Amino acid sequence: MALIVQKYGGTSLSSVEKIRWAAAHLVRTKEAGNDVVAVVSAMAGETDRLYEMCLEVMDPPDSRELDVITSSGEQVSSGLISMAVRALGHDAVSFQGHQVRILTDDSYSNARIMDIDAVRIREAMGCGKIVVVAGFQGVDSGGNITTLGRGGSDLTAVALAAVLGADACELYKDDVDGVYTADPEVVAGARKLRRVSYEEMLELSSLGSRVLQGRAVEFAKKFGVPVQIRSTIEPEREGTWVIEERSAMGELEQMLISGVTFDNNQSKITAIKVPDRPGIASRLFTLISDEDIVVDMIVQNVSTEGYTDITFTVSRTDFKKALGITERVAGELGASGVVSDKKIAKLSIVGVGMKTHSGVASEMFRVLAAEGINILMISTSEIKISCVVGEKYSELAVRALHKAFGLGEAK
Amino acid sequence: MALIVQKYGGTSLSSVEKIRWAAAHLVRTKEAGNDVVAVVSAMAGETDRLYEMCLEVMDPPDSRELDVITSSGEQVSSGLISMAVRALGHDAVSFQGHQVRILTDDSYSNARIMDIDAVRIREAMGCGKIVVVAGFQGVDSGGNITTLGRGGSDLTAVALAAVLGADACELYKDDVDGVYTADPEVVAGARKLRRVSYEEMLELSSLGSRVLQGRAVEFAKKFGVPVQIRSTIEPEREGTWVIEERSAMGELEQMLISGVTFDNNQSKITAIKVPDRPGIASRLFTLISDEDIVVDMIVQNVSTEGYTDITFTVSRTDFKKALGITERVAGELGASGVVSDKKIAKLSIVGVGMKTHSGVASEMFRVLAAEGINILMISTSEIKISCVVGEKYSELAVRALHKAFGLGEAK
Repeated sequence: MALIVQKYGGTSLSSVEKIRWAAAHLVRTKEAGNDVVAVVSAMAGETDRLYEMCLEVMDPPDSRELDVITSSGEQVSSGLISMAVRALGHDAVSFQGHQVRILTDDSYSNARIMDIDAVRIREAMGCGKIVVVAGFQGVDSGGNITTLGRGGSDLTAVALAAVLGADACELYKDDVDGVYTADPEVVAGARKLRRVSYEEMLELSSLGSRVLQGRAVEFAKKFGVPVQIRSTIEPEREGTWVIEERSAMGELEQMLISGVTFDNNQSKITAIKVPDRPGIASRLFTLISDEDIVVDMIVQNVSTEGYTDITFTVSRTDFKKALGITERVAGELGASGVVSDKKIAKLSIVGVGMKTHSGVASEMFRVLAAEGINILMISTSEIKISCVVGEKYSELAVRALHKAFGLGEAK
Repeated sequence: MALIVQKYGGTSLSSVEKIRWAAAHLVRTKEAGNDVVAVVSAMAGETDRLYEMCLEVMDPPDSRELDVITSSGEQVSSGLISMAVRALGHDAVSFQGHQVRILTDDSYSNARIMDIDAVRIREAMGCGKIVVVAGFQGVDSGGNITTLGRGGSDLTAVALAAVLGADACELYKDDVDGVYTADPEVVAGARKLRRVSYEEMLELSSLGSRVLQGRAVEFAKKFGVPVQIRSTIEPEREGTWVIEERSAMGELEQMLISGVTFDNNQSKITAIKVPDRPGIASRLFTLISDEDIVVDMIVQNVSTEGYTDITFTVSRTDFKKALGITERVAGELGASGVVSDKKIAKLSIVGVGMKTHSGVASEMFRVLAAEGINILMISTSEIKISCVVGEKYSELAVRALHKAFGLGEAK
């Protein structure tokens, strides 16, 4: 008998029919002889509706009360799923963050899970019940309601699976049925991966493949939780396992890289001919981070004659603000000017195989050059190489790289 | 410095504007030098919306999960009101049933309050905060979410006022500004009472004057909580105080009765010529109560020649079911037949003055006879006399009684 945690996202719970489907799938899993714990998000659109209402009353909304309000969406879902299971003649019980003490820190709207008291969950499972836990929410040590940030139900599911020692944590999606070697809408031959390692998934989730919340992957990696991305549309098909690198190696050692991704929501800004003095970069990036702007890549040229160019990328939504700051301090920094490009894309190839194979970067550069695509910036990590190119080349580049690395070929 | 509990019902929180108004009124009360605790219902329509959704998933819905779901409406309101107070520059904090441990029994959807832990509320008030408590909800000893039944936020407010030793519990209404001597829509000269006793209010609330939940009045009576019904439309006007009989006497001793009410949602059923044997009535009413039908009045004639007629009233919604049961057991009871009248009304006059004044009942009968209205049934208590009449006479009768007892006259 296995213990399985199943997480259902908002789009999988957007109607009474879908709620009934999820309940029936929980019952099927239970009847196959497993213990089952469900983790549920708010019904699609509900969190946005509640957030909009808050903004009408207070903008920006008070963070403690925002969490009180938005967490109610998951409370409703958990009750509805439990009812739907009961309507099928099985026993079920819902639990909120305060009832199974999903203890978090007190960072409202972005809290971190510290501990979960699994006693009540185990008791309920011992009585044969299907347990339904409201995702996204917890309580701090003072009993105040907290939430875990967007996509936080993924984190709830993985953390519960860790605490319960679950055999699998299945994350059900409506829109995807796994992790692909590239976006199937861009690359016709994109192939679903049977397995990816936590490290690869981390790089992939931070690159805009919105399959799985990054913090949930970190948590899964830390506690070795076997995660599976699955589809509610074709539940009988295997999805993609996100697991430890060692276990993933069977497939991965034959694969140099596991995926090619791109992110078009990027822009870049360059401060030209900045005097190369200590503290210059620090001054600029402190001002930018003070405005809560996340800088992704930073490249600083080798200094020539005491001057250097500093180029960095930010998401396109932060472009205007970041450009304003840079232009304002350009004089103070002694820069001769500021140039920018709002329309760039970041291409990345990800793969644990890179750790032990050389030549991946040069192959990537060669492929892009053969397509006549100019590389504007480069950054590398152990398992990832990213290149910034003009936005218009992004899809062409992804297809070329996908083909060159043989990602579409069946094994 | 006084401590005031203010309760805002759903219609007083039906829009962002009304939420802002309630917040501003809380702030005014605070700035006048009082400690303030707000108790809030769900926004108008929200509880019904959630209930409908539950019915779609499971009918009848599981009672534990129903409470999990419906209690979320008050959770949202409490957060919104706290935000609205903060938006006005004052400090506020919301609390749910589990956070201030509004401990109830485990009768889901109709739970009774056993205890409230006021420590966190006092602490928050000590820090100068306006405290906003979600009404309607509590937790049982196992930490399961419970709700207090329709109108339950009234009960939360009164119970909190009792535990905190509040100087007043103000219940804000959108549709009424107090308790009247009769329904102002029926009796043009109906007058707002400055004071009524708990006992009178109990009789009035059970008679369909939907101003205040009956259980809340019982609670207020038990703990001597001074309750005031007030209007959000004209908040500067005094509403009606619901207080102890002794304190109310100043006004009441001049008043024989305090109000005339009627309830058109009544029907009556008679089992004719039933053999007058012990256990006959018990047999009939056990079967009826087994179906969760509440019987209001029961009249049994004096036995003649060993036979009696048993007449009882039920709400019109239960009429068909109750009639079916009575007809089914009529033979078993030995009755010669069953007659019924679906369209009757119950007229009641209520007043603590009756306790010490005789002649109220005979005056009532005289007034009805003078109007040519036939009395079908009579029942009396210490402070109430009810007569059943044909439905078509109810408004005429209320106006005649209101005039005869001088209720419309200014004091």
